[in-house]
Formats: sequence, C-alpha cells, structure tokens
Amino acid sequence: MTGIRPNWIAVDWGTSNLRAWAMGPGGPLAQAASGDGMGRLARDGFEPALIRLISPWLCDREMPVVACGMVGSRQGWHEAPYMTVPCPPLDVAHVVRVGTSDPRLAMFIAPGIKQPSPADVMRGEETQIAGALALRPGFDGVLCLPGTHTKWVQVSAGEVVSFQTFMTGEMFALLSQQSVLRHGMAGDGWDDAAFDQGVADGLARPERIAARLFSLRAEGLIAGLGPEAARARLSGLLIGTELAATRPYWLGQPVALVGSPRLSAAYARALASQGLDAGMLPADDCTLAGLAALSRQLRVSA
Amino acid sequence: MTGIRPNWIAVDWGTSNLRAWAMGPGGPLAQAASGDGMGRLARDGFEPALIRLISPWLCDREMPVVACGMVGSRQGWHEAPYMTVPCPPLDVAHVVRVGTSDPRLAMFIAPGIKQPSPADVMRGEETQIAGALALRPGFDGVLCLPGTHTKWVQVSAGEVVSFQTFMTGEMFALLSQQSVLRHGMAGDGWDDAAFDQGVADGLARPERIAARLFSLRAEGLIAGLGPEAARARLSGLLIGTELAATRPYWLGQPVALVGSPRLSAAYARALASQGLDAGMLPADDCTLAGLAALSRQLRVSA
Repeated sequence: MTGIRPNWIAVDWGTSNLRAWAMGPGGPLAQAASGDGMGRLARDGFEPALIRLISPWLCDREMPVVACGMVGSRQGWHEAPYMTVPCPPLDVAHVVRVGTSDPRLAMFIAPGIKQPSPADVMRGEETQIAGALALRPGFDGVLCLPGTHTKWVQVSAGEVVSFQTFMTGEMFALLSQQSVLRHGMAGDGWDDAAFDQGVADGLARPERIAARLFSLRAEGLIAGLGPEAARARLSGLLIGTELAATRPYWLGQPVALVGSPRLSAAYARALASQGLDAGMLPADDCTLAGLAALSRQLRVSA
Repeated sequence: MTGIRPNWIAVDWGTSNLRAWAMGPGGPLAQAASGDGMGRLARDGFEPALIRLISPWLCDREMPVVACGMVGSRQGWHEAPYMTVPCPPLDVAHVVRVGTSDPRLAMFIAPGIKQPSPADVMRGEETQIAGALALRPGFDGVLCLPGTHTKWVQVSAGEVVSFQTFMTGEMFALLSQQSVLRHGMAGDGWDDAAFDQGVADGLARPERIAARLFSLRAEGLIAGLGPEAARARLSGLLIGTELAATRPYWLGQPVALVGSPRLSAAYARALASQGLDAGMLPADDCTLAGLAALSRQLRVSA
C-alpha cells in the first residue's frame, strides 16, 4: 500500500500517451505514465485505462482529476468544445465535468481553442500556454510551442489573440523515417553546421523546400553527405522554412519557447541566427503549471 | 507456345515494378509486367525475375534486352555509372553490357545522369527524355516529368543542360496516407476549385506550406472541408509551391509534360493558371521511344 495521498490528480492525455501526477500542496508527489493514449482506446476504455494508472493514489473520498489534451476531442472520452480566440488559454466556465462509473473520481476535462479564420485548432497546448503565463506572469508577446504540430501563439493581456500551426515536426518524422531520405539519414546524431546551413537555405528560399529535400538524397549519393549532416540539415530546412513564414510573429517580438529541451534548443539556435534571443520554458513544467492553475480555478486543489 | 518472336526486348525496371515489351520492327508486339521491382530483389534475384517475365519471348538465338531505371543503380543488378550534365540523355558509349548465366540474353543497362552542383541525380527519366526528343525532334525548352520525384529538365540542342528534382509526389503520398491529414482525406475523388485554390496559395506564399497543410486538418474539424476538396487542395498546395520554385524553368519557356495522363493534367492545369500552355507526352510512350532510340544506337533492333 502506497502512502501517497494527493489532493488532486493532474492528467495530460494525448494521442499516444497518458501521464498523471499525484499533486500535493507543494507540487507533484508522484508521477505515472502509460502508453494508453487516446488514439488506442475505444470510448469505454478511457475510465479503465485511467483507473489502472492512478488507482494507487485513490482513497475513500472523491478525488478530483483535472485532464487536458486529446482526451477532450470528439474522438476522446468526452468532447470539451473549443473556446474561440480571443480568449484566456483556460477558463473554468468551459471545463467539462464528466460522469464516471467509479464514484471515487471527480473528472474534469479542459477545452481546446479554435480560431475560425484562418482555421486552426489546439488541444493540450492551451494548458501549456496557461502554465507559461503562470510561470511568467505578465508575459506579453509570442509563444512558440515546437512539436509534432508546432504552434506560434500571440499572447496579450493574458489572452490568446491568434495562433498558427505548422506540421513541421510531423514532416520531419515522415521524411526522416518513411521517405527515400531515410536511406541516408542517421537514427540519431547531429551536426550544428549542417543544421545552420539548412536554416539559412530554408529562410532564404522557402519555395525550394521540395528540391532541397531531394538534394539531401543526391548529395548522399554523389557528394558524400553523411547521415548526421543529412538529418540535421533536414531539420534546419524545415525549421528555416517555418521561420520564413512566421517572421511577422517573431520579428522584434519577445519570444518564449515551450517544448522539449532538445527541440526548443534547435529553435532557439535558428532564431539566434536571426538575432533573436528566445527564452525557454520546459513543456512539462508548463503543462503542470497550467493544470494547477485550472485546479485552483476549480477550487479542487486545497 | 506463343508465336511472339521479337527482335529485341525493352525493359523499364524501377524500384517497385518490372515492365517489359516484346519489340518488333513496327513497335511493341506484346507487353508483360510484374511486381519484381529492384527494391524487392537481392543481387542474384535479378536474372531469374527477368527470365520469369520474358521467357515466352525467348528462343534459340541470343535476344538483346535493353533496360533502364533503378536496375542500373549501385543497389541494382549492375551499376551503370551516371553520365554528367551537360550530356545527351542517352549515349551508347555509356551503356553497360551485363554478363548473364542464361546464354540466350544479351543484356544492356542504360546509365543515369548526375549534376554535380546543385547535386542531383536521375535514373530512368533520362530514357524518357531521350524518347521525348525522339517523338519531338528538335525540341528546345523545358521538360517537366511529374512523379514521385518530379524532374524539371532544361534541354537544348539535344542535350540535358541542367535539372532539378522535387519530392512533391512522395510528399503528397506521405501526407495524404501517413500523416494526421489522412483522417480528412478521400482515397480518391477530386475538386478542381480546391486544387486551383491550393495552387494559388502555394504560388503566392510558398513559405507557408507547413501551415497550409495543417489548415486542411483544422478546416476539416471546424469549417466542414470535405475529403475530396482536402485531397485536391493538398495536391494544389504542393504543386503550387513547386511552381514558385521552378518559375525560372517555365516562365516564358516552351514546356512539355512527360508523365501519367492524370498527373500531367494536374500540372498542365496549374501551369495554365499562370498563362502557360504546356504540351503533354505520355510517359510510357517516351520510355519506349527512348529504349528504341538506344536499341538503334546499339544496332540490336534490326
């Protein structure tokens, strides 16, 4: 029997992963994770998957669970309809209380945010944005959340004003693992100079992206391009092309990166090549800070 | 026992497919194909795979077989080293004669073409280019060969002067079948207006490609974008972005498209939106005409 007695439980439930934190008054007491992502569950599989993960933390009294991510999508456990920009990143009035079979659970799901035009959506990132604002009160500027679908978000006066999503991370994964480029690509490893060259090429001539990609293959065949350099230049090309499109977001603006340390460092390096010094906040810290802010709004964290 | 007695056999041997034509004095007498692409064969599997396909056409005398495509790559049956631009698309002096176990075969493999800078390679397309020049003698201008790896080729005085390869077709396949976009994408079906919009968007702001891609997903979720329109706009976005990069190739130039009828028609429509009237030549006709031109150079087609 574990001795952990949390006040509430924070949950980040994405397409591929389910992560939970047992939260005490001073922060997380324990952490647990499983591969029971929303994409692998049928509708009646959500509650059992959650119970499997957090049952050691449950007790006789009702336990508040505050969740964000794809769990609230139409294909998730229960839809938490999008809020619409401009709006605060989280708003207790739009949180959905979900009924459960297990009486020990008081289940809350945070909504995502949509932008009608240009059409865009986020689900999960709104919680990281709320967390970033909790960790950097008064931040006014641009948040970049690099990942599978990188988000650029204009934040002002505590609200999400506008945002734009780029498929950069998913394109990197597909091209490096599934395309003809995989033959000349390292599974890991890196080359800073090749990354910088890719960023410069992508920024200067973004329209050439599909040709620059094939160049990686051709240079591997006839010019001795190595697999580490090919992988780093691919990343640089895609990020540089993205930076060409997001110039209005970052030029002359305060920018903070919210992501994994490694990916944020790549974006920071690319932005530094353009004279911009971006701050960095770890994505996990922001997720947890956002869920904690929501739990306070819900008055379940006492 | 078949009555087909060809003078020689034409072979197009790519990564995924093996195709052969029994050639008589007036053109093809018969055709055969299998899935024994170069990518599925070990080095000692090539000759048996070829024999399986063409044995009905073999007889006592030695049969010339003239092949093009990935069969001549380093991972193929036998490497036929690249020629270097500027060069004629095919040159008998660079054809490789390959030894065979079966004495009935006289096997010839056409070389590919490389461009040292910017690094680029082709293997198979050089034969289509030779065929296009055989079908349109004296053509001076630009050939566009749309496909998995679309080639833009500057041709002058019967020589390949320069070329550039775009991964547009492979990106379309990956994005429509493997990415998050697959959820809102028709397996087939089309929407001309959505294609045109994609071409216009890609041409006007090519740097936004990764954001425009995610828009397809977002519009599917919150703005009712249908699967046919999503698929056609994806194609248009990628082709439009390619046309933004290839403007120096096609602007004010005679352009001929060498590809499948359907894909060539999409490129022709995109180019027509920019006021350019491109000619079209079916890729298969060009492959066959190119191999026939080579067989005449080799003096094996009599």
